[in-house]
Amino acid sequence: MSRVVIALGGNAMTAADGSARPDDQRVAIERAAEPIADLVVAGHEVVITHGNGPQVGNLLVKNELAAHVVPPVPLDWCGAQTQGTIGLLLLDALDRALAARARPARVAALVSRTLVDADDAGFTEPTKPIGRYLPREQAAVMIEHGQMWQDRGEHGWRRVVASPEPRECLDVDAALVLLSAGYVVVCSGGGGVPVVRTEGGIVGVEAVIDKDLTAALLARDLAADVLIIATDVAAAVVGFGGPAPRALAVVTVDELTALAAQGHFASGSMGPKVEAALRFARSGNGFSAITSLDHIGDALEMNNATVVTAAI
Amino acid sequence: MSRVVIALGGNAMTAADGSARPDDQRVAIERAAEPIADLVVAGHEVVITHGNGPQVGNLLVKNELAAHVVPPVPLDWCGAQTQGTIGLLLLDALDRALAARARPARVAALVSRTLVDADDAGFTEPTKPIGRYLPREQAAVMIEHGQMWQDRGEHGWRRVVASPEPRECLDVDAALVLLSAGYVVVCSGGGGVPVVRTEGGIVGVEAVIDKDLTAALLARDLAADVLIIATDVAAAVVGFGGPAPRALAVVTVDELTALAAQGHFASGSMGPKVEAALRFARSGNGFSAITSLDHIGDALEMNNATVVTAAI
Repeated sequence: MSRVVIALGGNAMTAADGSARPDDQRVAIERAAEPIADLVVAGHEVVITHGNGPQVGNLLVKNELAAHVVPPVPLDWCGAQTQGTIGLLLLDALDRALAARARPARVAALVSRTLVDADDAGFTEPTKPIGRYLPREQAAVMIEHGQMWQDRGEHGWRRVVASPEPRECLDVDAALVLLSAGYVVVCSGGGGVPVVRTEGGIVGVEAVIDKDLTAALLARDLAADVLIIATDVAAAVVGFGGPAPRALAVVTVDELTALAAQGHFASGSMGPKVEAALRFARSGNGFSAITSLDHIGDALEMNNATVVTAAI
Repeated sequence: MSRVVIALGGNAMTAADGSARPDDQRVAIERAAEPIADLVVAGHEVVITHGNGPQVGNLLVKNELAAHVVPPVPLDWCGAQTQGTIGLLLLDALDRALAARARPARVAALVSRTLVDADDAGFTEPTKPIGRYLPREQAAVMIEHGQMWQDRGEHGWRRVVASPEPRECLDVDAALVLLSAGYVVVCSGGGGVPVVRTEGGIVGVEAVIDKDLTAALLARDLAADVLIIATDVAAAVVGFGGPAPRALAVVTVDELTALAAQGHFASGSMGPKVEAALRFARSGNGFSAITSLDHIGDALEMNNATVVTAAI
């Protein structure tokens, strides 16, 4: 029996064409629930976290188009909203998948926050593009409202925000209580709602946190045995796009660190997944696996995945 | 030590003028957290549920104004979104209020669903008005999309939806686990996300559930000692608007049932609160109290509130 943290992204959350229509999200998550339910039936303790990029993108468009009637909500609220909807979908889907396996439905979804540093460099030099492209004139209006936008060439302008380092999953203790009581727990969705600690208490900030980096922190704090980063592909690939691409199987932290330093993994896609896998494996609790949804069961056996271990 | 369910509504959630701007909500909830934290310090077990009317109203406007770009989300998703944002505000506010009292912050917010009957009369004869008024032409567009709208006179047209009877709080077991571990638990916000049970599993429905009626169900299922319905006024009033209004203090279920039958309580405001208070008091677990936020501590002592007991 292992304690497993699964980070859902990519095609586990939306249609194959990236669409995040409500029905597309429901269907994708129902499919994701099947292999997860198999892990539960096999006796593993399971915690699920998830991305929310397309969903937040949709909320930002709504913010923008309704701003003359309804006050826009800040980015931390957008994150909390997606924890609500994706949490709801996961509750329903896992209830069903577990019932089909004659298991009692014990699934809980927590609204959960991730602490970041108020002086994280991301706040002074935002780098993370979010939301839709707009023509320069419309971007200028948002810039007047204090947002930072960048000229992205032919597509137009796009908002950039801070993507600070996750420092602490604030609601991990509640997740542990539920996990110990036999629950599948959904938490830290979208990397967790970004908050900072101030003299006046904890307050939300305008930022997005990389969900894989938060997953690594969550897995460490839950003393998980395995972190599985479920994505669109079954492995991280060295020499991607080159003449001799090579899918990585089992690698050590040292080996993968060296490959990452050579620039094999794209900063916007596989890069953060590799970094998250490295962080958890370095923590000494267990191993990390990057794989597709179909192979999360195999990944626990170190098969059909890029597996990152402290040492072989 | 009592187990207390508190249903927050009205001025606990928005500014005095009803505004649901993000900062207004934050300030209102920070104020609500103070007397709640006092109950925790006094040793009581506390579960919080809350309304979401103005918040869902805002989300519906966004749905409508962005529909040409972003797919609208159904009402059950709107409910889940408000559980996210209001849950987040309550986590932050209670963390702060408890820290100020030198108590460890043990607060958790659950995404939670309420089961309703698929054949509830509300689905064939919707009665609950939601969202903003629109001119007839705009309402006609939404009617073509399958929504039911009604002519409400000089204000214009307004959407009506089902407001079915809450039958079961599906995530109450997770709330009990957290409560037993010493957590203040936020759950069943907005009456809970409305779902029905089908052959294919649990699915969301286009409906809103009265948050006070859900609170009564929640209080019963949690075996609470007290249900406190926190609203804008310190008591239910008999003869409201008449020559000799009389605030109710301690009344029995039989007395209040008779007064309700006489039509003393408005169907859109005090009516459901009285009905919820009656339901919980009839369940035989404990007593109900309708009062303002300032008096929730007094209400536990049966003071400064309309208190409903099985018998005196």
